Amino acid sequence: MTTQTVLDLDQDVVDLTTALCNIPSVSLQEGQLADVIEVTLRRLPHLRVTRDGNGVIARTELGRAERVILAGHIDTVPLTDPPNLPVRREGDYLIGRGTTDMKGGVAVQLALAASLTEPSRDLTFVFYDAEEISDEHNGLARLVRHRPDLLHGDFAVLLEPTDDAVEGGCNGNVTAQVHTRGTAAHSARPWMGHNAIHDVAQVLQRIEEGQLLDAEVDGLTYRQSLNAVGIEGGIAHNVIPDHAVVTVNLRFAPSGSPEKAVSYLTDEVFSGLEVEIIDVSAGARPGLDRPAAAAFTESLGLPVRAKQGWTDVARFSALGIPAVNFGPGEAQFAHADDERCQVAQIVACEEALRRWLG
Amino acid sequence: MTTQTVLDLDQDVVDLTTALCNIPSVSLQEGQLADVIEVTLRRLPHLRVTRDGNGVIARTELGRAERVILAGHIDTVPLTDPPNLPVRREGDYLIGRGTTDMKGGVAVQLALAASLTEPSRDLTFVFYDAEEISDEHNGLARLVRHRPDLLHGDFAVLLEPTDDAVEGGCNGNVTAQVHTRGTAAHSARPWMGHNAIHDVAQVLQRIEEGQLLDAEVDGLTYRQSLNAVGIEGGIAHNVIPDHAVVTVNLRFAPSGSPEKAVSYLTDEVFSGLEVEIIDVSAGARPGLDRPAAAAFTESLGLPVRAKQGWTDVARFSALGIPAVNFGPGEAQFAHADDERCQVAQIVACEEALRRWLG
Repeated sequence: MTTQTVLDLDQDVVDLTTALCNIPSVSLQEGQLADVIEVTLRRLPHLRVTRDGNGVIARTELGRAERVILAGHIDTVPLTDPPNLPVRREGDYLIGRGTTDMKGGVAVQLALAASLTEPSRDLTFVFYDAEEISDEHNGLARLVRHRPDLLHGDFAVLLEPTDDAVEGGCNGNVTAQVHTRGTAAHSARPWMGHNAIHDVAQVLQRIEEGQLLDAEVDGLTYRQSLNAVGIEGGIAHNVIPDHAVVTVNLRFAPSGSPEKAVSYLTDEVFSGLEVEIIDVSAGARPGLDRPAAAAFTESLGLPVRAKQGWTDVARFSALGIPAVNFGPGEAQFAHADDERCQVAQIVACEEALRRWLG
Repeated sequence: MTTQTVLDLDQDVVDLTTALCNIPSVSLQEGQLADVIEVTLRRLPHLRVTRDGNGVIARTELGRAERVILAGHIDTVPLTDPPNLPVRREGDYLIGRGTTDMKGGVAVQLALAASLTEPSRDLTFVFYDAEEISDEHNGLARLVRHRPDLLHGDFAVLLEPTDDAVEGGCNGNVTAQVHTRGTAAHSARPWMGHNAIHDVAQVLQRIEEGQLLDAEVDGLTYRQSLNAVGIEGGIAHNVIPDHAVVTVNLRFAPSGSPEKAVSYLTDEVFSGLEVEIIDVSAGARPGLDRPAAAAFTESLGLPVRAKQGWTDVARFSALGIPAVNFGPGEAQFAHADDERCQVAQIVACEEALRRWLG
């Protein structure tokens, strides 16, 4: 792959996607791609560009009545071995790392940034780093801390892959560990001890009983779930184990608060057991009843679904900005070894947003 | 600790125990102690001494009608930090690594080897290495392979700690792994996958239902048990796990064969599940109905119990030699950081064996 210093934003958005994918940008190694995006956007006189780490923000400042944010992350999960790059075209698909998650969306952002010199609403384009790894590195979270002034707006679209639909809000998320404690003994004399792994049966039973029903929020249906995602216990083959731990993951609808979700686990599902909360993320209400959001969905005429997984729309939601996911690609191919994206979806997404904002 | 080249076998058996413990001999580091035992025994004209690795065998060859084997391992588990040596005396106890498991027994062997110059039965003293670590290193197993001619006999006493009782035979032992398989999915969309950890509930249920009753063998009662001794599963907090594995340990009475024990797990308890056999050890019948064994228990007048844990008596049993455990010390202190042995038990064990063999 050759080093590019400037992107041609006038080319076809599918070719632009290919060019973006062919600059690898695995999380924490986004420097080259961030440089290329920054340099390219600084050439456009109608945009004010700010760099923060490997994040780039470009804004129009036309004094419009409304401001819309179009956001996307520029990092990808690691390449396969041998690498699933450069991108190749096969029938209706672009195939390779980043095509779906989410350089198709980034290409749409860049194409709109270049061509919408007189948009109907002021625009803020946010390109950020390190979305695919742990929260502490997340580039959007860092921008919220460093430059909240650049992130105000009336409505945000995150261009994560949604398979030609609009996905509103997202579920919240609690990860917890449930510990069972016993008494170690030699396994030849198990009656001298108490087997902590056998007590895991009770934890699994509680998980089964603790499943939540689907929840309707602002007209969208969110599926809630509780799963064991890890289990560990045991010292040696000849020892009755005195400790086991089950890691559980609760996905809760955005109508519920993180506090309620935590107490659901500690005081209801696993009441009386030893529960340790590992991680909590608030969900985001879809907010489709707000005027800016309503105008968007009306203009697009696309189906609106609930987003089940947690996404960075929750960060906009926390800033009081209604946000939706709308971007090219099918979520099922994200992170897959054979990651791919229908080229028609990239084109359609760009056209839909241009129709709304042009 | 000073390097000793010869042991004084005329000293009190408790002092001899102290001297033996103060020559550290953690498994695979028994060289110095084996040297000292070999050199000491070679000075005794009534014994024929053979060295094999860090094992030492000393035999009388008096042409007696019966031959009795007295066996013990000379290695210990690792020392604590700071080291639980040298041995100290506190009230009725010797305290330090090896006092119970099993240098008290080795001291009794050595004292009898030196003083029983005209025993009622021919005697074979076996001192072997590497009992406390995995089977492949076991010194008695190696002697069975290298010098089976030196191990024939009518009855064997293994001087492992039995707390002033005689323990007959031992349970057999199967370790197996039960696998559950599912389908991975993002934990935001668990309905796209199948959770392998949730299926562990069924494995734990089978373990509960698969418990075996106590079994009576040659008049002794063996407790059988089935336990989960390890559990593992899970990929990441946001992934529905596609695999979990439960390690189980079955202890079965010596009336059952290893083949029956394995098929009990694969065809009955975990029938229909994926079971992998990791390790199988045959048990040993107590054999207390045989003449040599009957004479022993009658002469000692001590209570006879079933041995629950697997011990090296099973190796004698496999050679067709009835064998029991009888030695100073309480099993509960074996391997303990505060390992200790009642001095009176060392003295009593030596007296009991001298009464029988003198």
